[in-house]
Amino acid sequence: MQSFSTFNSRHVLITGGLGFIGANLARHLLALGARVLLVDSLIPEYGGNLFNIAGIEDQVQVNISDVRDEHSMRYLVQGQDYLFNLAGQTSHLDSMQDPYTDLEINCRAQLYILEACRLYNPGIKVVFASTRQIYGKPDYLPVDEKHLLRPVDVNGINKMAGEWYHVLYNNVYGIRASALRLTNTYGPRMRVKDARQTFLGIWIRLLVEGKPFEVWDGQQLRDFTYVDDAVEALLLAATNEEANGQVFNLGGEPVVSLKELAGRLVAANGGGDYVVRPFPPERKAIDIGDFYADYSRIRAVLGWEPRVSLEDGLARTLAFYREHLSKYL
Amino acid sequence: MQSFSTFNSRHVLITGGLGFIGANLARHLLALGARVLLVDSLIPEYGGNLFNIAGIEDQVQVNISDVRDEHSMRYLVQGQDYLFNLAGQTSHLDSMQDPYTDLEINCRAQLYILEACRLYNPGIKVVFASTRQIYGKPDYLPVDEKHLLRPVDVNGINKMAGEWYHVLYNNVYGIRASALRLTNTYGPRMRVKDARQTFLGIWIRLLVEGKPFEVWDGQQLRDFTYVDDAVEALLLAATNEEANGQVFNLGGEPVVSLKELAGRLVAANGGGDYVVRPFPPERKAIDIGDFYADYSRIRAVLGWEPRVSLEDGLARTLAFYREHLSKYL
Repeated sequence: MQSFSTFNSRHVLITGGLGFIGANLARHLLALGARVLLVDSLIPEYGGNLFNIAGIEDQVQVNISDVRDEHSMRYLVQGQDYLFNLAGQTSHLDSMQDPYTDLEINCRAQLYILEACRLYNPGIKVVFASTRQIYGKPDYLPVDEKHLLRPVDVNGINKMAGEWYHVLYNNVYGIRASALRLTNTYGPRMRVKDARQTFLGIWIRLLVEGKPFEVWDGQQLRDFTYVDDAVEALLLAATNEEANGQVFNLGGEPVVSLKELAGRLVAANGGGDYVVRPFPPERKAIDIGDFYADYSRIRAVLGWEPRVSLEDGLARTLAFYREHLSKYL
Repeated sequence: MQSFSTFNSRHVLITGGLGFIGANLARHLLALGARVLLVDSLIPEYGGNLFNIAGIEDQVQVNISDVRDEHSMRYLVQGQDYLFNLAGQTSHLDSMQDPYTDLEINCRAQLYILEACRLYNPGIKVVFASTRQIYGKPDYLPVDEKHLLRPVDVNGINKMAGEWYHVLYNNVYGIRASALRLTNTYGPRMRVKDARQTFLGIWIRLLVEGKPFEVWDGQQLRDFTYVDDAVEALLLAATNEEANGQVFNLGGEPVVSLKELAGRLVAANGGGDYVVRPFPPERKAIDIGDFYADYSRIRAVLGWEPRVSLEDGLARTLAFYREHLSKYL
């Protein structure tokens, strides 16, 4: 991790701050001397978890509120130097069953936040957590930022809009903002309770519990970013003026099939079982097939590249849940 | 205009049906024997105008309601064979001043309509009026459908999402839907009261009133579609199964600079004056520079091409407003 001394004594707001990526980011920012304010709704089905800040609870400020609460956002952005805007509805399936809630969180609340910055803190720097999901089913691999956006579910469409609000407020109002299109991010503090947000979470849970996990289809190729690498990308985007108004893919090496990933996970665990099953029909309808990202743009512009190998990342993640699984059920 | 005998005795719903394109479409559909239901909110600042159906008011059914009214939409889609989904907030500037209203109309209401179709009339065929605005500032000209979408205002972002909801409901739920990315559409019944939606409207009004009109900058290249040609494209998209799940650019010949267009308009009017002025700053921030579309895709797939020349179109439009201007002020 680079030094990032610029964060020393700076005020940093993280929406979704009790979630997987937000809480890992908060730990890094604390180590860098930042004054960290975590905003989270703690909606039970989402990623927020107070255990994610175990050990640092006295060093961060926590404000429980929902990004759909326009008034709290107006207050909370004030005085902040940086905003890591990570709060979102992230379940593809939930977005199909309840498109309106997804719209409120991933579109309307994003406008609330950006309008709050425009009106009350235009000097803030914003980094938005976007997603590779907005590309939809790729025309070519690896997918670079020149690939058309063709989202295949309501969540992807709304996240696409949310990303573009950030670019727009940068370009039109000068609210400096950058967006990272995250691919499958994994690591300690990820949600492992069920498959609502990512298949990898439930795989890890079942493996740690000594139960077989299900691999759907198994042939799809994917890339994975360890959470510390994602955090470094967020910090780089926050501190580099060349990131303003820009969107960047993250990625990871190696690209593996889900079946191969399952094998590596079992190996990292020193044992375990999985079964390969066909896709459930409601998931098949919004599946995108193979996906992996070209991250050469963020490497060229911000100097980012993944540092944690898949082996190390999986081992660290399993070690975390062997110790703490009960806090994530 | 092709025969389109398939519309005979079919039930057709047009949202935004009292607006410029909706009312022209309604007249064509009536001539084709369709049973036409027009839904419009008649919000004063928008394009709806009861005079747009003067002479056909006894042959169409009119239902005043807003697409944001989820319950009326649920009822109104039932029993319809076709839905031309034209209602929208179309002002770029308004979308920047009030992003939430734009979101409600161009995103949330679109979900209402599509959910209503999914739940109560999944056999309906939907054609959505999208806009070239979603491309933003072009990388290359003419702009084809492979060009990235990089909208430069809130309206463009929300229309992009609205378009993709339609593609999504086609692909996931089999609600047949097609989207046309309209460029500058002009003709009788367009809104001419002010420059809220298109500069060409206010130019026509001022010219007919014998006053000079303002051309901002004047160098930008644009393409224009006469409304009858846009109507034909809508009918082709509705009746051709190859359009399902597809998006198509419309376009027009010739491509002209705004200054050249001003000259042609004055010539078609047999006189008049205009002044060239710099862009107002709030418009400059969301201007896209030159834009004209490649419409070869819709020509190849649906056999559409513009038939009405710019000269004829401008002459017909001016003739309409010389007779009826008072109804549009």
